[in-house]
Amino acid sequence: MSITLYELAGAEEDRRFSPYCWRIVMALKHKGLDFASVAWRFTDKNAIAFAGTDKVPVLVDGEMAIHDSPAIAAYLEKAYPDRPSLFGGPEAEGLSRFYVDWTDLVLQGALFRLIVADIPPLLDPIDADYFRRSREARVGTTLEQFCADREPKLDALRQALSPLRRTLTQQPFLAGAQAGWADYTVFGAFQWARCVSPIKLLPEDDAVYRWRERMLDLHDGLARKAKGFPV
Amino acid sequence: MSITLYELAGAEEDRRFSPYCWRIVMALKHKGLDFASVAWRFTDKNAIAFAGTDKVPVLVDGEMAIHDSPAIAAYLEKAYPDRPSLFGGPEAEGLSRFYVDWTDLVLQGALFRLIVADIPPLLDPIDADYFRRSREARVGTTLEQFCADREPKLDALRQALSPLRRTLTQQPFLAGAQAGWADYTVFGAFQWARCVSPIKLLPEDDAVYRWRERMLDLHDGLARKAKGFPV
Repeated sequence: MSITLYELAGAEEDRRFSPYCWRIVMALKHKGLDFASVAWRFTDKNAIAFAGTDKVPVLVDGEMAIHDSPAIAAYLEKAYPDRPSLFGGPEAEGLSRFYVDWTDLVLQGALFRLIVADIPPLLDPIDADYFRRSREARVGTTLEQFCADREPKLDALRQALSPLRRTLTQQPFLAGAQAGWADYTVFGAFQWARCVSPIKLLPEDDAVYRWRERMLDLHDGLARKAKGFPV
Repeated sequence: MSITLYELAGAEEDRRFSPYCWRIVMALKHKGLDFASVAWRFTDKNAIAFAGTDKVPVLVDGEMAIHDSPAIAAYLEKAYPDRPSLFGGPEAEGLSRFYVDWTDLVLQGALFRLIVADIPPLLDPIDADYFRRSREARVGTTLEQFCADREPKLDALRQALSPLRRTLTQQPFLAGAQAGWADYTVFGAFQWARCVSPIKLLPEDDAVYRWRERMLDLHDGLARKAKGFPV
């Protein structure tokens, strides 16, 4: 069977910047699974309608089409039990859920306020127009105005990271000695930022920075080699 | 071997309100371990000096004396491997760490702003004086002033709970199907509040409220029976 992943791309086909897609790319590598990647843009709704969704990632594995990154991770774990585990057992799979919700609601919220205005110039014109209209409707102002006054937003991000920072002074990865789905979930948010924005989010003496470096090195430096900014 | 737990108590010996001690009480019950409880007050520093600390919980098991709640949990897991696991494997133990740091830095911080002024009237006079002086030095004002204007603080708490809330709409416990150390860690904070403050923190239709109800029912309703307020 062959695996295909539909991944969000910018105007440049190799600018893959979705935090949700990065979770799955790292998870596929963790499991040692080969896959074909299909570049997808925000306005290509028809291209993934077969999967019953209008958002990526979409993973196609033989006759299965799965969307929503936690559902894809659960599928991969179940479908490939002989490969390295993404979680490390049912309790660990349960415990990983909060990392998804914390990343979606806290971390990505804090990053969105910093980087969203950097995204439209990197998109195809039709996508840039869609992205700007939909996001400006959500935030109630222009993206540039929404992202102005960066310093307090950087402070808020670094404050929001305080529990993560303390955890990462005590162990190399969120899952302990080795990276797992929780690490890929949180890392996806940082990789999203790295792929679209030149902002320096973290000082080099931050335990979160050092963890991000370890994540960038995983799987032959896959995430580090991706098109982005050297932050 | 017999196990002894030094637990923080109020003026009434059965008002046990430390969030850190509740983590360990629930963990001991989870493992089905009997223990003797010793009531301890903030100013009884000498009583636990043998363990190399001035804070409870302190757990004494035969010749071992362990302090710091995550260290006690790790000890119990290692010393009693044939009892029900607190974590569910090394990855789950790693993943549980962030729950401790999030509880300490985010959840307990948000609760402290709401409930700290309710604590001194419940303490022995000598403890009440120590508690007030040390906490007022930390917050830079009176505890009553610090806890004034409750509504925005309640809003901040409920906002801080948003990722937890989303997780708990998807599974009954943080560790998945059954409660584990992560649940006991987060629950300890709510039980601290319940033991000292009549404030209604959560509406009944909140998934966090419903999870707290499940936690209060565990181990024959141990936490529900404890001296506190019916919130």
